[in-house]
Amino acid sequence: MLTLPSNLSRSARLFADRLAVVAPEGRFSWSEFADRVRRCATLLVEFGLEPGERFAIIGHNSFRQAELIRAGYWAGLVPVPINYRLAPPEIAYILDNAECRLVAIEAPFATIMASEDLAPWAQRTLSIEPMQYEQRLDSAKIAPMHEPAETDDALLVYTGGTTGRAKGVRLSHTNILLNALQIAFVARPRVDDIFLHAAPMFHSADLLATPWMMAGAAHIYLPEFSGDKALEAIQEHRVTCCVLTPTMIIMMLQQPDFERYDLGSLRQVIYGSSPMAVEWILHAMQGFPGVEFIQAYGLTETAPLLTMLEMADHRHALDSGDHRLLQSVGRPLPVVDMKIVDGNDRELPPTEPGEIVVRAPNVAKGYLKRPQATAEAFRDGWFYTGDIGRMDEHGYLYLLDRKKDLIITGGELVYSLEVESALYRNPKVRECAVVGIPDEAFGEALLAAIVPAAGESPTAEELIEHCRAHIGGYKIPRRYVFLDELPKSAVNKVLKHELRRIYSTSSSAGETT
Amino acid sequence: MLTLPSNLSRSARLFADRLAVVAPEGRFSWSEFADRVRRCATLLVEFGLEPGERFAIIGHNSFRQAELIRAGYWAGLVPVPINYRLAPPEIAYILDNAECRLVAIEAPFATIMASEDLAPWAQRTLSIEPMQYEQRLDSAKIAPMHEPAETDDALLVYTGGTTGRAKGVRLSHTNILLNALQIAFVARPRVDDIFLHAAPMFHSADLLATPWMMAGAAHIYLPEFSGDKALEAIQEHRVTCCVLTPTMIIMMLQQPDFERYDLGSLRQVIYGSSPMAVEWILHAMQGFPGVEFIQAYGLTETAPLLTMLEMADHRHALDSGDHRLLQSVGRPLPVVDMKIVDGNDRELPPTEPGEIVVRAPNVAKGYLKRPQATAEAFRDGWFYTGDIGRMDEHGYLYLLDRKKDLIITGGELVYSLEVESALYRNPKVRECAVVGIPDEAFGEALLAAIVPAAGESPTAEELIEHCRAHIGGYKIPRRYVFLDELPKSAVNKVLKHELRRIYSTSSSAGETT
Repeated sequence: MLTLPSNLSRSARLFADRLAVVAPEGRFSWSEFADRVRRCATLLVEFGLEPGERFAIIGHNSFRQAELIRAGYWAGLVPVPINYRLAPPEIAYILDNAECRLVAIEAPFATIMASEDLAPWAQRTLSIEPMQYEQRLDSAKIAPMHEPAETDDALLVYTGGTTGRAKGVRLSHTNILLNALQIAFVARPRVDDIFLHAAPMFHSADLLATPWMMAGAAHIYLPEFSGDKALEAIQEHRVTCCVLTPTMIIMMLQQPDFERYDLGSLRQVIYGSSPMAVEWILHAMQGFPGVEFIQAYGLTETAPLLTMLEMADHRHALDSGDHRLLQSVGRPLPVVDMKIVDGNDRELPPTEPGEIVVRAPNVAKGYLKRPQATAEAFRDGWFYTGDIGRMDEHGYLYLLDRKKDLIITGGELVYSLEVESALYRNPKVRECAVVGIPDEAFGEALLAAIVPAAGESPTAEELIEHCRAHIGGYKIPRRYVFLDELPKSAVNKVLKHELRRIYSTSSSAGETT
Repeated sequence: MLTLPSNLSRSARLFADRLAVVAPEGRFSWSEFADRVRRCATLLVEFGLEPGERFAIIGHNSFRQAELIRAGYWAGLVPVPINYRLAPPEIAYILDNAECRLVAIEAPFATIMASEDLAPWAQRTLSIEPMQYEQRLDSAKIAPMHEPAETDDALLVYTGGTTGRAKGVRLSHTNILLNALQIAFVARPRVDDIFLHAAPMFHSADLLATPWMMAGAAHIYLPEFSGDKALEAIQEHRVTCCVLTPTMIIMMLQQPDFERYDLGSLRQVIYGSSPMAVEWILHAMQGFPGVEFIQAYGLTETAPLLTMLEMADHRHALDSGDHRLLQSVGRPLPVVDMKIVDGNDRELPPTEPGEIVVRAPNVAKGYLKRPQATAEAFRDGWFYTGDIGRMDEHGYLYLLDRKKDLIITGGELVYSLEVESALYRNPKVRECAVVGIPDEAFGEALLAAIVPAAGESPTAEELIEHCRAHIGGYKIPRRYVFLDELPKSAVNKVLKHELRRIYSTSSSAGETT
């Protein structure tokens, strides 16, 4: 069956004695892990939660969070993992919107619950403080499995909270398991893999681990990402696979003692969630020799993946010397229908840019209690990603921009990613982001926020000169700001709306014409 | 989307220039193959067939049959591949039951249509005679895709015709594609695979090739199986993967010039559909060194697979010297729920034998126009396989018997497979089958049909003596018949009902007490 509790039962039976969890506090086999999940389900049920009801989880990555999520699946409850970096009013909005009947919260975040905004939930918490949690678990009975329908909501993941109200994406058992089967088609999980959960578990990226749950692999949870901790974990636990954002990879590569680590166990890195400059991809392939790199693209609404760029594509780009393929996020997964449409929903021919629209069994049902947002994004069986891209005749997808980040300057359409790609070809640029800001003459003007490479101080003039070699004049930013770092979300996505907000109203951006 | 035409489009786009078909008459890339399928769809539509209607295909394995099946998918028609070894009245029953509006037939079988039984369809045929077919295809237009619902019938495969009326199993797009994704989870198809279609295409075993369609591999069709032709095809076309029955493997191993063939390209053999003696599995692993062997079990009703025994299990059995694991058909695929139940539908604990019952998205909707047979086999969301087996605590399934082949002798239940396994341990036995025949004293008595190994003439006495070392007295057959070959179906399943029929009414079976 396409249900997550049924799948846990299978893993517990097939991989009973194999390692499921490796944690500082111990190692659990699959049968032990499943046993803990079933006891944890009793804890949830004892709070009076009924099948279909939702509960929140606020915490760092940990095997206990993994347990809580699966305990929810087991009891027919819908877990709502929440970004612990959100402010109390934002958390309150989610708890309220999802009608969460319980908040499972890790000790370091217990103070959040003291906020006045969260008063209604103050008495409805379950502590994930280890000693307390283990005691309760020890004395809890094994809960029976609640059998959900395959299309029931399994998980509610909030997204888009960075602009306006966050939307709760309703992911069903089918959504998650079918995406896992598709990911497995490309990534080929192995029973002897050791999978590092490096991306935050409140983000849909963690669903990428599902195939490794089905395969009976072992799992390690990194509480909070840092370059050195990730490298240490790989070395210490002989990690074989992980999912990383480009920023995470760069942070690892830039560790001063990078060479000191023994990373020989690592065999596969799946990376994505934001564009990665080709130079950095090449650098990563050199830094992790022999590792299979797979680029991935998707959204929370697609549970989460739509496309993957396989290692063979990476190798082809390397061998041919034509690195353009590395700018592609890959090709549609086995049962993903994908098309590129214009503003009138007309399908566009290959290579023409337009909105990426998909139809697949991993597409969510919609947003919880947001009928208008749901109706806008989910139309006639298709999901409108809000991403602008083009697909070549062989199915390779190239992302150009978020629809809302498109820039129109002097009547010309500019894709910020194209401009950023040009800037990234300058070695003095470590990171950059290009946005449109209001301009009286042009409607919008291009602003580039630049994080210089270590020890470098590029000037606006030389970057403009650099761009001339790569892109048309109207695409070249005339305004530059030089920053120590870019504003980013918890999963390291650049917050372009933040840049727009700051630089639209200030005169701090230098201008060069 | 979980639809087969959509998946063909994907393969045509992603693997456009890669080889899809290798045939004596030429090689077709995926874009050429898809183009042929789309033209072939026009041929079907021009016969006046409407979406949802069915058409039959009668022919040897060939890429044209593969095209016709996919042309059906493309046009929203339901292909009905028919066993060309059936007698005209049996074929007429299927054509009538399925209301086939057209019969696509290969030249060698054209005479079948002259039978009086088939008169109603005589004027509704499409010849697959190469020259005629190619001419029509050349002049046909490209048909647009008919978009089916995921749960629409995609393929109708008749099964069970060996006892009573054949039943048409209604396989949906979802059934087939979800089984393919699960098979891929274990078998890991590669884009550079060369897949040999050795099993007959009218049988559900050919659906095992679907993951290799999705992966963009090349396909070779063996018109009709023989040991030497299969070996030649592997050598000539550098075949990497194939699906074989135990009998096919044995036929290949027994080719006198087996050693002469260069089989170095072969990397994977999936085998199943009937039990394979452990000695033969070991022999096969020696004969095909370095090849990954995967045992598979399933039914037409499950599109087709339920369990797979991975190479790691084979290796474990070899390394440990404990070969019992090789008698298992493996463990449930990722989204297959499987339980063993007694006659009152109660789930049995591990290792206890009972009927194998499954719930999975690859389980068919039922049998066409056979409400009673459907209601008996498909109950409360579960499919009753009619197979008796036991499953150990780690999920390894061991088949014991078909429910209808169970033998009750003197009030004791005997599983014929257990008796056959014991007989197979005698090197003088090449093939055997054990059935129950009416007996006044015991209700049923055990009869063993034996095909002796080359040059051997085992006696009933010595086989009885041999069995004493392995199984209890009441399980030892007392009656023996020695045959040149066992009666078998088109996919080499032993026809036990035939043995029962012949030996229940004759006195030709020698008896020893």
